[in-house]
Amino acid sequence: MPMKNGNIDDEKLAGFASRVLQKMGISKEDSLITAQKLVQTDLRGIESHGVAHLGPFYVRRIRAGLINPKPNIKIISQTPTTAVIDGDRGLGFVVGHKAMLEAMNKAATTGVGFVSVRHSTHCGAGSVYSLMALSRNMIGISMTTGGVGIEVPGSRGGGAALNVISIAAPADEEPPFVLDMAASVVAAGKIEIALREGKAIPAGWAVDGKGNSITDPRKYYTDKGAVLPLGGSTLLGSYKGFGLSVAIEILCSLLSGALSIPQIVGRPDYEGSANHFFGALRIESFTPVAEFKKNMDEMVRTYRSLPKAPGVERITLAGEPECNLERERLKNGIHFHPSVIASLQKLSQELNIEYDL
Amino acid sequence: MPMKNGNIDDEKLAGFASRVLQKMGISKEDSLITAQKLVQTDLRGIESHGVAHLGPFYVRRIRAGLINPKPNIKIISQTPTTAVIDGDRGLGFVVGHKAMLEAMNKAATTGVGFVSVRHSTHCGAGSVYSLMALSRNMIGISMTTGGVGIEVPGSRGGGAALNVISIAAPADEEPPFVLDMAASVVAAGKIEIALREGKAIPAGWAVDGKGNSITDPRKYYTDKGAVLPLGGSTLLGSYKGFGLSVAIEILCSLLSGALSIPQIVGRPDYEGSANHFFGALRIESFTPVAEFKKNMDEMVRTYRSLPKAPGVERITLAGEPECNLERERLKNGIHFHPSVIASLQKLSQELNIEYDL
Repeated sequence: MPMKNGNIDDEKLAGFASRVLQKMGISKEDSLITAQKLVQTDLRGIESHGVAHLGPFYVRRIRAGLINPKPNIKIISQTPTTAVIDGDRGLGFVVGHKAMLEAMNKAATTGVGFVSVRHSTHCGAGSVYSLMALSRNMIGISMTTGGVGIEVPGSRGGGAALNVISIAAPADEEPPFVLDMAASVVAAGKIEIALREGKAIPAGWAVDGKGNSITDPRKYYTDKGAVLPLGGSTLLGSYKGFGLSVAIEILCSLLSGALSIPQIVGRPDYEGSANHFFGALRIESFTPVAEFKKNMDEMVRTYRSLPKAPGVERITLAGEPECNLERERLKNGIHFHPSVIASLQKLSQELNIEYDL
Repeated sequence: MPMKNGNIDDEKLAGFASRVLQKMGISKEDSLITAQKLVQTDLRGIESHGVAHLGPFYVRRIRAGLINPKPNIKIISQTPTTAVIDGDRGLGFVVGHKAMLEAMNKAATTGVGFVSVRHSTHCGAGSVYSLMALSRNMIGISMTTGGVGIEVPGSRGGGAALNVISIAAPADEEPPFVLDMAASVVAAGKIEIALREGKAIPAGWAVDGKGNSITDPRKYYTDKGAVLPLGGSTLLGSYKGFGLSVAIEILCSLLSGALSIPQIVGRPDYEGSANHFFGALRIESFTPVAEFKKNMDEMVRTYRSLPKAPGVERITLAGEPECNLERERLKNGIHFHPSVIASLQKLSQELNIEYDL
């Protein structure tokens, strides 16, 4: 179906992304998993983690040998409720998808399932994994390590990893709750977007390697920049953002038997390495699902009906704007920044793949 | 053993607290559990949640009928990995202690255990539960709801609950990692401490009911105050702090079949009500314990050896200052603010209990 206003159709986009990945040596099945997740990310408006990364991130890293296109993803150890998976440096989307499925399968049998994953690579937005749990009436949890780039309280420069946690829970009529957050004030991807759009970043997001506040996104890349931990300053709780980064590190890296991300800084054999942690809680093992979902609706409506600050039209919970955007974009297509379109066109030329978007 | 400088011995303090609670109708066993946790909290320097609360919080609430001194704490539903417990409005420390033990016992058998708890009451600092897991070589997780008091982004006044998450993981030679944080910029207890000490609070902690920043802690109580969600402003990620509050709410309240805290505002039948969530992950079910702990040590040392900002002596992880303080206070006793001493003396008079501290 042709799209209005130059917007791109999600299915066509997924087809294109899948063909790109197959050209890079990824199996058809794995390319479809990855393409679906990249496009879902764009549908939900998390443009820092969608197809904009296809060329500059994934294709580049496969070419550089940092991502193994034919990984032997294997379970290292397991119990009925837990597993450790080695991703063999496969594409993070594929490793993550399989590990989350494993957590959910365990939860279906025992009530809860937790899987810690080592030797994986960048797996995109955390919510594409936590969301998988909803159709099975589970609460989904996903965590991943990022690169080192959070200033540690008391230090200078990026010392902690840009780790991410996502938690999703289903509602009945209301949109599901979907928290998806880095342990920092902002995801580094937001600085990438500002750079792409030639805009300044707000004070309070990032600092240079000497701890000076920066508003020019270029300086993040040229001056050994770091983003601030959630909280911003020690007076306002930055040790909490740092603490969240470390907690995620423990569950992803240490529990899977991997070294933590700060320990592998500068080691070429670990370049682009990421570790993950996935969890699923079967709601029915705790409380009746229908009651839980109805109660979720009522809770959401309680927050929504709080007194509004002047100028605010609607109070929203995590996941609601993304859910609405997804519906709208499924109908009208996805609008991309011209630089993203250009990067997709460039990929089509480089890889000799038809550009049909 | 007599203490120097008017400091108070931890064991004597626990004995005193236990006698106070028994006088209020709490069983000896339950009073000892509670006293131990209150004193542990003070040993670790979390003075907003220790014996300072004994009279004004717990004794007052037992007297007011808000806490049931002889609760029938029971398991409502369970599987080998999960349970829902009804606390029968018992003292939160007792309910929490039993629920955390249940989570750990399940983890010992199956690898992981998760317990969601409804109809409990204020259970103090989150870390006194997560810490229980360490001696059994587990990662401990605890969450609890607090009262409504976080300003929701886009709203005015306290709309979300002051919910708390704690995660603890053991190391080998290094102090354990112990994150213990409210989803807000600061715990409301820090405003209580400022009030106790007659000090101003920093801008960025709290607002009045109209959303104006306040620095006089009294206004928090007189002008319908609220603390800001971690992040502070929407530009700096306050939706993340709010999202954490909601995520904790879901795991504590909705998963246990309770109404969320925002839904019970103003309902006298729910006054002082709290819900909890406890989890335990048996490390050995994922990876060898000795390796995990050694790796924890190395990770801690990696963070510690990061470049230091000018004037900073040591970079610390969550739990390290508290661990050091606990060692020091076990030796030298606990120093309290005179107002806390006065409140303990007042309790001894009111309840006709010998003051031997």
